Amino acid sequence: MKAAILGYGVVGSGVGNILYKNADIIEAKLGEKIELKYVLDLRDFPGDIFEDKLTRNFEDILNDSEVQLVCEAMGGTNPAYDFTKRLLEAGKHVVSSNKELVATYGYELLTTAKEHNVNYLFEASVGGGVPILRPLWQCLAANRMEQFYGILNGTTNFILTKMYNEDMPFEEALSLAQQLGYAEKDPTADIAGADVCRKTCILASICFGKHIDPEQVATQGIQDIQIRDVSYAKANGYEIKLLGYCRKLDSGKIDAIVSPFFVPKSNQIATVSDVFNGIVVVGDMVDEVFFYGKGAGSLPTASACVGDMIDCAMHAQKRKNFGWGERDAAFVEDHKNCQSAYYVRGTGDINAVKEALGEVSFLSLQGAPLDEVAFITPCQTESELDAKLASIADFTIAAKIRVLTDN
Amino acid sequence: MKAAILGYGVVGSGVGNILYKNADIIEAKLGEKIELKYVLDLRDFPGDIFEDKLTRNFEDILNDSEVQLVCEAMGGTNPAYDFTKRLLEAGKHVVSSNKELVATYGYELLTTAKEHNVNYLFEASVGGGVPILRPLWQCLAANRMEQFYGILNGTTNFILTKMYNEDMPFEEALSLAQQLGYAEKDPTADIAGADVCRKTCILASICFGKHIDPEQVATQGIQDIQIRDVSYAKANGYEIKLLGYCRKLDSGKIDAIVSPFFVPKSNQIATVSDVFNGIVVVGDMVDEVFFYGKGAGSLPTASACVGDMIDCAMHAQKRKNFGWGERDAAFVEDHKNCQSAYYVRGTGDINAVKEALGEVSFLSLQGAPLDEVAFITPCQTESELDAKLASIADFTIAAKIRVLTDN
Repeated sequence: MKAAILGYGVVGSGVGNILYKNADIIEAKLGEKIELKYVLDLRDFPGDIFEDKLTRNFEDILNDSEVQLVCEAMGGTNPAYDFTKRLLEAGKHVVSSNKELVATYGYELLTTAKEHNVNYLFEASVGGGVPILRPLWQCLAANRMEQFYGILNGTTNFILTKMYNEDMPFEEALSLAQQLGYAEKDPTADIAGADVCRKTCILASICFGKHIDPEQVATQGIQDIQIRDVSYAKANGYEIKLLGYCRKLDSGKIDAIVSPFFVPKSNQIATVSDVFNGIVVVGDMVDEVFFYGKGAGSLPTASACVGDMIDCAMHAQKRKNFGWGERDAAFVEDHKNCQSAYYVRGTGDINAVKEALGEVSFLSLQGAPLDEVAFITPCQTESELDAKLASIADFTIAAKIRVLTDN
Repeated sequence: MKAAILGYGVVGSGVGNILYKNADIIEAKLGEKIELKYVLDLRDFPGDIFEDKLTRNFEDILNDSEVQLVCEAMGGTNPAYDFTKRLLEAGKHVVSSNKELVATYGYELLTTAKEHNVNYLFEASVGGGVPILRPLWQCLAANRMEQFYGILNGTTNFILTKMYNEDMPFEEALSLAQQLGYAEKDPTADIAGADVCRKTCILASICFGKHIDPEQVATQGIQDIQIRDVSYAKANGYEIKLLGYCRKLDSGKIDAIVSPFFVPKSNQIATVSDVFNGIVVVGDMVDEVFFYGKGAGSLPTASACVGDMIDCAMHAQKRKNFGWGERDAAFVEDHKNCQSAYYVRGTGDINAVKEALGEVSFLSLQGAPLDEVAFITPCQTESELDAKLASIADFTIAAKIRVLTDN
């Protein structure tokens, strides 16, 4: 089968690399070769093994009926959306690592794929090389999904690991991540949570059957996490992790949020450090399953893309069914109305806190100021908690962070 | 699609349960119902929801052309082998949770399935509900597999966890596991490693493309592990775990073994405790991926079976290709010729050990007898190590256990 790659950057060149290096494995699995016919990029790549496949003209690929399979590794929605749509309409299978595109236009592109009897697969868009989407919709197909939560961004997890293990302030950890090439020059999409939000939307759409748009998911990054709160976490048996979190509510709606969480050390997700990704999925029959590995990087991410390409070639006549339905504006509950335990730190009188909040677990930290109060609340809605906190006389809130609990 | 279940025990009744409780989900995914038409068992199940589907006659199922899909959850090879073979020959898809059958007859049954244009799937045979086989041959299809190692048996991991966390002797931990229903009355298949060996063979056959038979894999269980060795592990940053382990050698052969291992605490596999399963897989492109969850139990295992049933129904016209080739007697290297680091404990003179073994890391343990020597060796073959150990004058070996290392 003849193939093309759109975008020859980190992921696209990794895909080329794998198609070349593991050609024998791919042919053995598939019974035919995947032959790269075009690579679309505006840049030159002198000396590259696929230099002779380079084109700057998308139409070359679109109009070549020999090309049945395209890997889109451009990132962003423009021109990736337009290109993907036209390729699917032309009856070509498309695989993608582009989480922004899938999170934003997933339902529409899957619908287009279905109409034109081709596949649109995007295993690489969540968790990089870690198998997660296919296990979810195939292996766990018999389950009613209850919740998932995951560390979905290696850059922020690296920064949090440095803050946690070495008491390194956020700004310094970010600089280090940039020096090591883990963070971009403009790290906003990572640290403010937009990247995690996109991946959370993709997982939620597959788990819960409706298109969840990034703008439906309240998103908070790690830029406001204080070393003081990291210290409280460490002293009391918690990690601090940036999680994409989603849970089915009794009402039928979902609680979907991207936010830092206090995570008990006993939870598998607490073991995920540095640039690794980890995702816990809970189904009604299988209970808890955990996936872990490298969530980014050229070859791991490309490994997922090429896995999808093999799947497309193997099932060229059969459509995948993700059960990814239309957007429903009312499907995501306002996060202020969802139950959670919270970690709160502030300045004020401990007795006033007790009176307003009832049963809470106070946390201790050696060397903390005498008037500092930190505690974990029982599960309640954020609205309820906010009202109680506002009722405490002379109490100044310094931090409020969700706590991951078992229920 | 009409289906049947062979064997209505722990797994089979779980399959019935899921087909009943999650019928709506399955129908939504598939666009049709999976209707249970027969349950084969010699026992009666008065009051069961599928009581009216019970039959004691296998021929009822075999000869009913309406039945296209069968879940074999009988266990053992007799009559499961004969039944499976005849069902495949009759053009029916078969899914299985039966690791003994798949490990022993996997190649033959897959060949039969291929000849009759049906699928034979067995996701539930390794890791229970944890997705592992499908991620391996689909998501990681673009990888040259390098190695895997896993905690594949919950019973033995529960026993080891008790020994490790509570210094409980093996016999006592086994009794407790029996009381809690985690271990069978006759626990031999679990504690002597046969169960792990079967799962290791299935994983190895899929990873490395040749049928690996249980008798090709040197297998040692946990019954000889002493609390003293557990104490050395604890005092020096290791866990002790029973692993199914397999690695591709430079020679093209594989090192495949089932054995207790000293596992560094920093390894993900060290975080797997109690009855949970965990599997690390290393591919040349994706690097390390880790899967974790409930490796046994009625509903988790049945969740994997029903996932396979949905996949069969969805791809009724398309064969899965596991790349599972014929047995090759020379493919598994004699474990005595494979490189590994070892933990050794014995009685003798530390200087004599230094002289015979060269560079080793000595381990300390408070309260150990003065003439006890324990150490970790560099990587070498077991034959080499045995020769060196035999050369030490007046040294009595009490324990020798493989150490999991990064290379």
